[in-house]
Amino acid sequence: MQSITVQTHRRCEMLDVTSQVAEQVRSAGLQNGYVICYVPHTTAGITIQENADPDVVHDVLYKLEQLVPQDDPGFRHGEGNSDAHLKASLTGLSQIVLVEDGRLVLGTWQGIYFCEYDGPRRRQLFIKCVKA
Amino acid sequence: MQSITVQTHRRCEMLDVTSQVAEQVRSAGLQNGYVICYVPHTTAGITIQENADPDVVHDVLYKLEQLVPQDDPGFRHGEGNSDAHLKASLTGLSQIVLVEDGRLVLGTWQGIYFCEYDGPRRRQLFIKCVKA
Amino acid sequence: MQSITVQTHRRCEMLDVTSQVAEQVRSAGLQNGYVICYVPHTTAGITIQENADPDVVHDVLYKLEQLVPQDDPGFRHGEGNSDAHLKASLTGLSQIVLVEDGRLVLGTWQGIYFCEYDGPRRRQLFIKCVKA
Repeated sequence: MQSITVQTHRRCEMLDVTSQVAEQVRSAGLQNGYVICYVPHTTAGITIQENADPDVVHDVLYKLEQLVPQDDPGFRHGEGNSDAHLKASLTGLSQIVLVEDGRLVLGTWQGIYFCEYDGPRRRQLFIKCVKA
Repeated sequence: MQSITVQTHRRCEMLDVTSQVAEQVRSAGLQNGYVICYVPHTTAGITIQENADPDVVHDVLYKLEQLVPQDDPGFRHGEGNSDAHLKASLTGLSQIVLVEDGRLVLGTWQGIYFCEYDGPRRRQLFIKCVKA
Repeated sequence: MQSITVQTHRRCEMLDVTSQVAEQVRSAGLQNGYVICYVPHTTAGITIQENADPDVVHDVLYKLEQLVPQDDPGFRHGEGNSDAHLKASLTGLSQIVLVEDGRLVLGTWQGIYFCEYDGPRRRQLFIKCVKA
């Protein structure tokens, strides 16, 4: 297992970690198979999203916040980050990306995004390269 | 890695691709392991859902649209499909299905559904059969 | 493939199944690799969530119910559980957890939760241990 450190800078933020994941695939020498990206946190997640227009990431975070606002009066959890917990479960804690000839098999517009929902924090992303 | 082409016919649509995935498992000769289904697009996704009553698929798409309407005035992305981007992240870009004795291990009512959120389009679904 | 039986007690409920999954990893003798947890139902799911403060699980279920209420008048499906179908797709039907030295690689506060959205029922959770 390998690990990437991600430093986030805002409460909610989607960070493109595609090149860091690709670097881990290279350093593991994986030619064909897939890589599992796993977030060991409960207020952060990971997704695949468009990496061309930054407005897409803005819109995704904007709408997620509108659906699950931080200050919902029905929340009981004392840390004030229940929204972040639900957002993490909604976008997911792990992603699988296929690898062929040493390269991540992503669609033309796809990037791998670390999703921070309760930052800023220093986070980790676990990487498991699997030959297959 | 194998690939399936999916032709969608509406803007939002859930297409049962179970038999196509099963056919790929057969042609790969996979007896035991699992299959990774990966969508290389950013406005489409994949999920597992009930395949008995078509009203279920209607209700899933209806409620997703109500939660994330296409015309939200807060969206900035110029292509007018920000809703589709978020919907893709919500239902997910990949699914894993176990395989035993050459057959997909699905629950009685489960089918694999390609989720189109910005069609109609010609889409691809990547398939990776893994022996395990 | 292995299997765990989960008995749920309410309509909506998140049950911590971490120790049962860990037990399956032990009985399979898996030292390094990962475990795939798969839910063969269409009105239940699985997620990773905080296992320290039970209020987190309360808040996640509360907000999910607020977003996707059971009694939405637009639902057509006759069984009255369309909300459960969508919730299952939103939090997901499977989770992957890495394994090192025979132990689940979870974050400090992470637990594996079976998500019941249309209980109480007797449910199954499929477990596939993969060496890698």
